[in-house]
Amino acid sequence: MKSLSTRTTIRKYAEQAISDGLLYDLLEQAERTPTMGNLQLYSVIVTRGQEKKEALAPAHFNQPMVTEAPVVLTICADFRRTTAWADQRKGNPGYDNLLSFFNAATDALLYTQTFCNLAEEKGLGTCFLGTTLYSPQTIIDVLRLPKLVFPVATITLGWPAEQPPLADRLPLRSIIHLESFEDYTPERIDDFYHAKEALPENRHFVEINHKETLAQVFTDIRYTKKDNVAMSKTLLEALRRQGFVE
Amino acid sequence: MKSLSTRTTIRKYAEQAISDGLLYDLLEQAERTPTMGNLQLYSVIVTRGQEKKEALAPAHFNQPMVTEAPVVLTICADFRRTTAWADQRKGNPGYDNLLSFFNAATDALLYTQTFCNLAEEKGLGTCFLGTTLYSPQTIIDVLRLPKLVFPVATITLGWPAEQPPLADRLPLRSIIHLESFEDYTPERIDDFYHAKEALPENRHFVEINHKETLAQVFTDIRYTKKDNVAMSKTLLEALRRQGFVE
Repeated sequence: MKSLSTRTTIRKYAEQAISDGLLYDLLEQAERTPTMGNLQLYSVIVTRGQEKKEALAPAHFNQPMVTEAPVVLTICADFRRTTAWADQRKGNPGYDNLLSFFNAATDALLYTQTFCNLAEEKGLGTCFLGTTLYSPQTIIDVLRLPKLVFPVATITLGWPAEQPPLADRLPLRSIIHLESFEDYTPERIDDFYHAKEALPENRHFVEINHKETLAQVFTDIRYTKKDNVAMSKTLLEALRRQGFVE
Repeated sequence: MKSLSTRTTIRKYAEQAISDGLLYDLLEQAERTPTMGNLQLYSVIVTRGQEKKEALAPAHFNQPMVTEAPVVLTICADFRRTTAWADQRKGNPGYDNLLSFFNAATDALLYTQTFCNLAEEKGLGTCFLGTTLYSPQTIIDVLRLPKLVFPVATITLGWPAEQPPLADRLPLRSIIHLESFEDYTPERIDDFYHAKEALPENRHFVEINHKETLAQVFTDIRYTKKDNVAMSKTLLEALRRQGFVE
């Protein structure tokens, strides 16, 4: 997986199509990812049609990748298939609850990441859209997702038409804890974030957002408490409508 | 990622240790995985000590891998680091809500899967423990996880001392949907599951569990409604205690 060390998120794609053969091959290979009880609690909705892409775009804040990528994949937590199978085989499925949603979401996300690792190894560019959980109901309506199916990840996919610089990452010491959790102290926080905050691109990011610190760009503009609280509510409502929460 | 096509979950490990150098190298490489706003909303607790492994084991139904693997990794959704950083930088963090938990869990799971893909490429064996969400409070207590940190995945890791046969998977047509969700019909369900149900190992599995169908082994024994409902409740309570739900 040599491609990983130089990977960057790709948001601009070449005109070149992705063949069904390649796409299905990658989707099938990714099925080797571990899954709960080997139940494969996920589904992938493949969007190639321009009309569907345009219908999905508002759910993703109209980010241009959604309509410009040759392929959009919506990966769903899916307990519907297993439930239908069990109903048909004299079983007693009980997967209309929060734990089952988490189990299926876990399967779906692990599958998604293997798929992305494989796709990037083939030279494809991917963009993971975190917006999937922000307006799930729009996605549910556009893709006609029935009960016990819930979108948890969206990937835009295409041959790269850009080569962005490598994104910075926190030093390893900031993400690992030995034996038990070592709580964050002001000194450690400074140590973890100092290099990130000093990067010219991040200083520029603070400047164009008219903020004093990089953290403020995230907490006051990009991911605000107000939005998070509102979207937690719509997320819970969508989970309820899809039958995962009472 | 040639290793993927032949990967199997490994539950038995050789005596051979995993060096810190290799482990940290893999953990660091996995940091290239995409993450929300480049915030890296995850932490990894590395367990090597026998005492800690024994303390964790009950949370994982005392599966022997937990105490026998040279390394156990507990991957957590972590909004605490980002929150501490923001507090220290005059920000207004608001990540004590369900959406933020999902965002961090997503980051953590994507990271986990890249790590596993990398580790297996190096010849290591991994086992993903789905039990992490079943008794989160035990794990929280043993690893002393503070507020805004929540365990979402556990990996046992070691050099393989077994070579299990490749697990079956559903045919690709059962997991993909073109343009919109194509609901499952009895005919399609039969088509998806027929080969799986006919496998000698799965027929044997039905027999030793004294059930009539394979689906019943899952719904009536392994993942029952009663357990799912009870564990959904304890999961929600743990999320509340960790500050992600009101």
